[in-house]
Amino acid sequence: MNRRDFLKKSSIATAAGLLLSRGIIPAKAQDSQTYYMVTFLSGIDYWRDAYRGMQDAAEFLGVEAVYTGTPDYDLTAEVRVLEETIAQQPAGILVTVINPEGLKPTIDSAIESGIPLVTFDADSPLSKRYSFLGTGNYQAGVTAARYLGPLIDTGKAAVITVPSQGNLLERTNGFIDTIRAEFPNITVGDEYIVDNQNTAEGAATGLSALLQADPDIRGVFSTNASAAVGSSQALREAGVIADVQHIGFDYDEGTLDLIDNGDLGATLAQGTWQMGFWGMMFVYMVANGKIESVTDWQAAGISPLPPNVDTGVVVINQSNSQYWRAQ
Amino acid sequence: MNRRDFLKKSSIATAAGLLLSRGIIPAKAQDSQTYYMVTFLSGIDYWRDAYRGMQDAAEFLGVEAVYTGTPDYDLTAEVRVLEETIAQQPAGILVTVINPEGLKPTIDSAIESGIPLVTFDADSPLSKRYSFLGTGNYQAGVTAARYLGPLIDTGKAAVITVPSQGNLLERTNGFIDTIRAEFPNITVGDEYIVDNQNTAEGAATGLSALLQADPDIRGVFSTNASAAVGSSQALREAGVIADVQHIGFDYDEGTLDLIDNGDLGATLAQGTWQMGFWGMMFVYMVANGKIESVTDWQAAGISPLPPNVDTGVVVINQSNSQYWRAQ
Repeated sequence: MNRRDFLKKSSIATAAGLLLSRGIIPAKAQDSQTYYMVTFLSGIDYWRDAYRGMQDAAEFLGVEAVYTGTPDYDLTAEVRVLEETIAQQPAGILVTVINPEGLKPTIDSAIESGIPLVTFDADSPLSKRYSFLGTGNYQAGVTAARYLGPLIDTGKAAVITVPSQGNLLERTNGFIDTIRAEFPNITVGDEYIVDNQNTAEGAATGLSALLQADPDIRGVFSTNASAAVGSSQALREAGVIADVQHIGFDYDEGTLDLIDNGDLGATLAQGTWQMGFWGMMFVYMVANGKIESVTDWQAAGISPLPPNVDTGVVVINQSNSQYWRAQ
Repeated sequence: MNRRDFLKKSSIATAAGLLLSRGIIPAKAQDSQTYYMVTFLSGIDYWRDAYRGMQDAAEFLGVEAVYTGTPDYDLTAEVRVLEETIAQQPAGILVTVINPEGLKPTIDSAIESGIPLVTFDADSPLSKRYSFLGTGNYQAGVTAARYLGPLIDTGKAAVITVPSQGNLLERTNGFIDTIRAEFPNITVGDEYIVDNQNTAEGAATGLSALLQADPDIRGVFSTNASAAVGSSQALREAGVIADVQHIGFDYDEGTLDLIDNGDLGATLAQGTWQMGFWGMMFVYMVANGKIESVTDWQAAGISPLPPNVDTGVVVINQSNSQYWRAQ
């Protein structure tokens, strides 16, 4: 059915779509435009893929991408860099947020001065940002469960985590809910959750104690990088590395070594490239929409952008670890 | 900091970004490409904005969009239409799913034959679809709470819903969690939830009874269209339409009349245009990525698309209802 048939078919007159359809058909940017990515701890490897994604989208769109940020873990420094970026009047900004409340006024000032801005990886949910692109942590836990579940015949599964940290709690809940719903032969629960206090040592000590107390542990989900390293050590020391299935979170060369050595079954890589690529596409669409009436569009309270995007995780194990090595 | 400076700054060799960066820089489609939207109940107005969004993105990308589907609410009919669409070997497919399990084999066959496919509005989460774009129902409940909360000074807030329906339960949970966390002067809870059994009459009867039993009700969240109509009637009949704040869900000309007459404070419109627009952008990127090595990319288990996208809701009240009228 083509558009004409579709319009003919429907007997009721059109609604909001017309406004949007009139409003934001995007146009190719006519002039040179510059978009900024702003980070904290700007030198770490973790942002590299996000900036690559932004660059790939910028290349497709024919605009320029610039990377900036503060090398420090410091709210005041990131506020200053974001303010300096806004002062450049860029076409759009992608920013990762060191502190949701602390960056809110500066984010809001960018929006109010007409600069499209989205957050990525870490959000300021009560700010006026158009969109947040980051890992859906509950869904990441679901993915961990669906990977580990079929590998465990029957038994108990432990979670090594920091229960007080919100994103790790969501990963834990997604894992436990999914195991319970889809793998009835596997037991999970509060008594099999180890608080690793955000250190590898904490994970090693805690999991060692649990393995001694309960020899029926057949699976381990380590919800962050330090937990994965420590849990792997505990499993090796207990002599059960071949008997207990284990999936971790995040990756670096050390994690990939653990996987290739057989000390860690798998890990989950976050979609940082996807955050940068689609974040760039998003701010471009706001910056370059053929908005016949900006007033109407904004008055109607309509954003062309999805407000929340789960950029997903990828399971890395021995079958694909080579693709994740430094090149 | 430009790219060269960034690459220089980081001392550790590159990781997965390189693969992705090499892999899927999108190219403008060289040949004429046709993309399909497949729906059930294909004649209803609700899909109109979604198809408009798809058309807007297709216009931007220089490809063709075609609307198809079955006019019936019938799984077999939608499976047949999707199979017929796949047989056309289109460049990509956007499909809304009448039944998650029933459509899964056909969706998987599209992916296996190399056709990029995303779901929108209603998902088949265990299928091989690249991505799902739809309303984040929990977040929609959060939005309802943040709209209603400041309008209620103090008192109790009721939810009119179908507790057994999963998407409505998520809306309810988002609302209740947010009221509890952010508006401590407002009381919510199971005793203020009315099961409207998916009819306007059920909502009217149930809310009338609640209002008689508890005169402290100061806010109402109706989680679907029929609930909003019935709740509005109950509030009017009880003579408290001016004293009780009320937000509904979805909209049509009748709902907009209620808003303009003052019988309904506000409603939430789902982001159907956004589903079609970004769904089209998503399948295009898979279809036209400059994939130097498809084998590598797929073997690495990497998708360039976010797996889950919350397309958001917009609050409609008297201040912007005119933009949502049929034009």
